[in-house]
Amino acid sequence: MSQVLLPRLSKASAPLTREVMAVNEFGAPTPVSIPCERPLTVYVDKRELVTLMTLGAHPELLVLGFLRNQRLVRSVQDIDSIDVDWEVGAAAVKTRDGIADIEERTAKRVVTTGCGQGSVFGDLMAEIDDIALPAAQLTQAQVYDIVNAIRLQESTYKSAGSVHGCALFRGAEMLIFVEDVGRHNAVDTIAGWMWLQNDAPTAGTDLSSLSLEGARAPRGGPSALPPSSYQPMGGADKVFYTTGRLTSEMVIKSAQMGVPFAISRSGITQMGHQVASRVGLCTIGRATNRHFLCYSAAERLVMQPELAGSRVRVVA
Amino acid sequence: MSQVLLPRLSKASAPLTREVMAVNEFGAPTPVSIPCERPLTVYVDKRELVTLMTLGAHPELLVLGFLRNQRLVRSVQDIDSIDVDWEVGAAAVKTRDGIADIEERTAKRVVTTGCGQGSVFGDLMAEIDDIALPAAQLTQAQVYDIVNAIRLQESTYKSAGSVHGCALFRGAEMLIFVEDVGRHNAVDTIAGWMWLQNDAPTAGTDLSSLSLEGARAPRGGPSALPPSSYQPMGGADKVFYTTGRLTSEMVIKSAQMGVPFAISRSGITQMGHQVASRVGLCTIGRATNRHFLCYSAAERLVMQPELAGSRVRVVA
Repeated sequence: MSQVLLPRLSKASAPLTREVMAVNEFGAPTPVSIPCERPLTVYVDKRELVTLMTLGAHPELLVLGFLRNQRLVRSVQDIDSIDVDWEVGAAAVKTRDGIADIEERTAKRVVTTGCGQGSVFGDLMAEIDDIALPAAQLTQAQVYDIVNAIRLQESTYKSAGSVHGCALFRGAEMLIFVEDVGRHNAVDTIAGWMWLQNDAPTAGTDLSSLSLEGARAPRGGPSALPPSSYQPMGGADKVFYTTGRLTSEMVIKSAQMGVPFAISRSGITQMGHQVASRVGLCTIGRATNRHFLCYSAAERLVMQPELAGSRVRVVA
Repeated sequence: MSQVLLPRLSKASAPLTREVMAVNEFGAPTPVSIPCERPLTVYVDKRELVTLMTLGAHPELLVLGFLRNQRLVRSVQDIDSIDVDWEVGAAAVKTRDGIADIEERTAKRVVTTGCGQGSVFGDLMAEIDDIALPAAQLTQAQVYDIVNAIRLQESTYKSAGSVHGCALFRGAEMLIFVEDVGRHNAVDTIAGWMWLQNDAPTAGTDLSSLSLEGARAPRGGPSALPPSSYQPMGGADKVFYTTGRLTSEMVIKSAQMGVPFAISRSGITQMGHQVASRVGLCTIGRATNRHFLCYSAAERLVMQPELAGSRVRVVA
């Protein structure tokens, strides 16, 4: 291959919240914001694949990450373009060479744990044993910085509630924060975004347009790069954060992205724990203020217990 | 049909929580309970249908309710038996006459909002316009009683967290409370349970064995009734409660069960609001202590605003 071809993405946009009138406990009409929720039917090479229910903030990245996390597409270069049209609630994906065996590979259904991906095609679980997570450590101070960054984040959740948020950090630096009505969508969107980021040390081309906003830049933007100058973002130095539970699915997706840390303000389920222990992924739950519980791969966590009680407790 | 045949159900059981060791913020090893989460693959007449991830508290009722809510089975009498075997993680469903067009009816996939059912087969949305909810009202005092009953409920959530709970009330009386790792499972379990309850006024047969526990009574229990003495439980005088968000799916399922009220401690999404408004289902969210917001069909709610501030605020 003489050059790296990145997909062209449309830049569909739609409102994220709407106002409705509710009646409160005093009988008073009260305007409240609620999150939008819209169906997006994904067509791959004109074949209907699935309908995703989404907030609609980053539909192209969502579709890209969905295809990635479902292992239907092995490289971002397999995708020629993704065009989202909210008028008809459709995402048209054009691949360069089609997806082999797509019928067979989308035949098996798993209805996962609540807040989990609806349909996990194929045997994702069977693939986790192939995952080797890189050696990486996180300090307790970084955990606290991450929890605090999430607390300060402006969000649809704060204005309308009823959405889940996921974020990707490099150390304690927040790279991207995504909300959606389902957190499986939020993590898929992050996976799609990572595929468009260039980690190549010799990147000579200005890829700033491939940031979250830039990925939605005018069609036909910079998409052809020499191969030596493109390397999709890796997960080794990253931390995945989710507002929701650490279910098996969230742990698997974090592992698939090569991210060795998953932090949540909520708890963990048995299969999440099992998968994380198996692949050596460090899971940290109940992370609020100074408190947390590290459920697995605690050797990755550099404890600084003196920090646990050293600051004034912040009440969110 | 000369008699009503209710399905035989196995009585599979499995632990609901397990203890794992975590490390807290002081670096101290801490035993914590986490909810179990296990795959249950459903076979209908020996054909694999779907794999559900479940806590495992009431697997037979879950499978029955799943088939009901997916509209794959129109009557409880279509099911001959459900046998769950946790050794192999399988539920074997035997129907009396098969399910017509099962291939076609399970072909369409929708990945719903987080915490939503993974695969909603067919066009559930298309069916909601056929639903006529009965005239029914609920008083503000009953809303408060329901919220308080939930607060007092012993639960896996309290011991291990990371599960969703759903409940069915008659007025302010709690009939059944179900938890699962996904709340779509919890509501399906309730739907399955309702199908086994007899609301026939002339019920001469003792159906006490068809209660939640009784449904798991020894196989071959009372399953044949004269038709006049069996009428599956209706929803007209019921209230559905969920700890999770009022998504379109939860609203649709409540409507399908004929239950005109849905209460949550959480909020509502746009499609939940849209569907509820369309079918006239009264949705009440943010229900904690004395506070709530009624999002739709407020005419069903008998306001008693004098109660809103009349009691000492209970802090859970």
